[in-house]
Amino acid sequence: MNLKKELNDKKEYFEKELENYIPKIQGYQKTLFEAMKYSLDAGGKRLRPILLMESTSLVGGNIEDAIPFACAIEMIHTYSLIHDDLPAMDDDDLRRGKPTNHKVFGEGIAILAGDGLLNYAFELMIKHSLKYEKESYKYLKAMNEIAKAAGVYGMIAGQVVDLESENKKIDKETLDFIHTNKTSAMIVGALRAGAIIGGADEKQLENITTYANNIGLGFQIVDDILDIVGDESKLGKNVGSDLENNKSTYPSLFGLEESKKIAKKLIDDAKNSISSFEDKGEFLKYLADYIVDREY
Amino acid sequence: MNLKKELNDKKEYFEKELENYIPKIQGYQKTLFEAMKYSLDAGGKRLRPILLMESTSLVGGNIEDAIPFACAIEMIHTYSLIHDDLPAMDDDDLRRGKPTNHKVFGEGIAILAGDGLLNYAFELMIKHSLKYEKESYKYLKAMNEIAKAAGVYGMIAGQVVDLESENKKIDKETLDFIHTNKTSAMIVGALRAGAIIGGADEKQLENITTYANNIGLGFQIVDDILDIVGDESKLGKNVGSDLENNKSTYPSLFGLEESKKIAKKLIDDAKNSISSFEDKGEFLKYLADYIVDREY
Repeated sequence: MNLKKELNDKKEYFEKELENYIPKIQGYQKTLFEAMKYSLDAGGKRLRPILLMESTSLVGGNIEDAIPFACAIEMIHTYSLIHDDLPAMDDDDLRRGKPTNHKVFGEGIAILAGDGLLNYAFELMIKHSLKYEKESYKYLKAMNEIAKAAGVYGMIAGQVVDLESENKKIDKETLDFIHTNKTSAMIVGALRAGAIIGGADEKQLENITTYANNIGLGFQIVDDILDIVGDESKLGKNVGSDLENNKSTYPSLFGLEESKKIAKKLIDDAKNSISSFEDKGEFLKYLADYIVDREY
Repeated sequence: MNLKKELNDKKEYFEKELENYIPKIQGYQKTLFEAMKYSLDAGGKRLRPILLMESTSLVGGNIEDAIPFACAIEMIHTYSLIHDDLPAMDDDDLRRGKPTNHKVFGEGIAILAGDGLLNYAFELMIKHSLKYEKESYKYLKAMNEIAKAAGVYGMIAGQVVDLESENKKIDKETLDFIHTNKTSAMIVGALRAGAIIGGADEKQLENITTYANNIGLGFQIVDDILDIVGDESKLGKNVGSDLENNKSTYPSLFGLEESKKIAKKLIDDAKNSISSFEDKGEFLKYLADYIVDREY
């Protein structure tokens, strides 16, 4: 399997679909739509929507049923980046090699573009859930996974503790709380929501959740490692910015080599947890490897 | 009918219920919950949740079914105030006579508390909708009303255009766009969602929508008037702040007396539109009058 090509095909498929779900740039609130689209179009790996759709297909569901939810989770991820980059938060000027949203549109519009993306994500999911009355309960359950993952017991919790931990020495428990919530939660949410849309049974959902938790934490650890060893052009953000902010990370707590080992172990466990899907899980297994191997 | 007492009773009833729906202040993300609660507890008229619950009962529904949605709409309203007060937006230090959220918790936490409230509003509505599978479609429709009202074709659209109109002379169409979206949309959303939860038929929903549109615009016009003639202690915000920002308003476009007449006419039409509910509509009619008469 040529994973790079597979991943790129899925990314292109998703991005084509996403275009249909972005509000048209017109009306009095034109600038808002421009700002939303600017960050949505800025690229990135599209990891969450790809995981969501893949999870739907893994359990035998139809990917098309999952598209509005895939767009919604990418919108939520994008809003979180816009707000995270603001001067009052991480104060970043660059994201994926482009000026951050507030650098282009100003802080006020950037805040509202973030708010808009979060709200619009729910609008999309609700609209899709309303389409077929009989199926609506299933979609409501999938929406619940995404809402929880993105919320004050998920992603936002991670961001708050991350913000409060700047320039502080934190222990492993706090670091794990940040990672689990800031990054893993949405990966878990994506995979669980996708599986529910695809009609997963209890056992399948459990296995997918184990996979999700492992690659979620692994992903963040590798991000921390890349923040030290990556180069700016590959990541499109200022390398070492976490170090500059004195953030505690896996490498700063355990060292580089040990961190790589921890990530490797998490990924192996992830792959094992979906072995029951046999060939159908092939892409997700490759993807798990890609997460650790991607840049170093 | 002693409206003031009725209104106060409903406000107290709502606020007691709201306490049960605010996340407990505990865990690593304690500060987040404190910031969310700080602004939720800051009071205000609780107009949107009261309208929502009243609309449910107007069409013969059970108010208790509407409570989580009433809490959700107040959370969305509150988040919009937190973000609106930020330095990059209206830059207000006072709200309802208390320091604004970012003055107490800092800008970063204020942004996240706003995000948290918006997301949590959806979490509450989804959780409630999942409770009874058979009823879930109805709640999904009610959630749709609130999501649209709060979103990029509703409240957020109004905020963006409002922000962009500062220090600019704008025409009546633009002003109406701002009013309709920034304030009316959520009032319409509250009343329509409440009616749907209560089981309204098409005709009832239509009449309630007319009522909602009229009091929504009337409410904003009166707010503009109060910004000129009100006194600071009554409003708990800096009087004349709209004027300072050179915002176009009904009074600045039409003069005070003509603006009062326009508001009065809107309210009369609102009351007529719910006459078919006879005695059951009494409170909402009083409330419509209260909106124009409240402070001047």
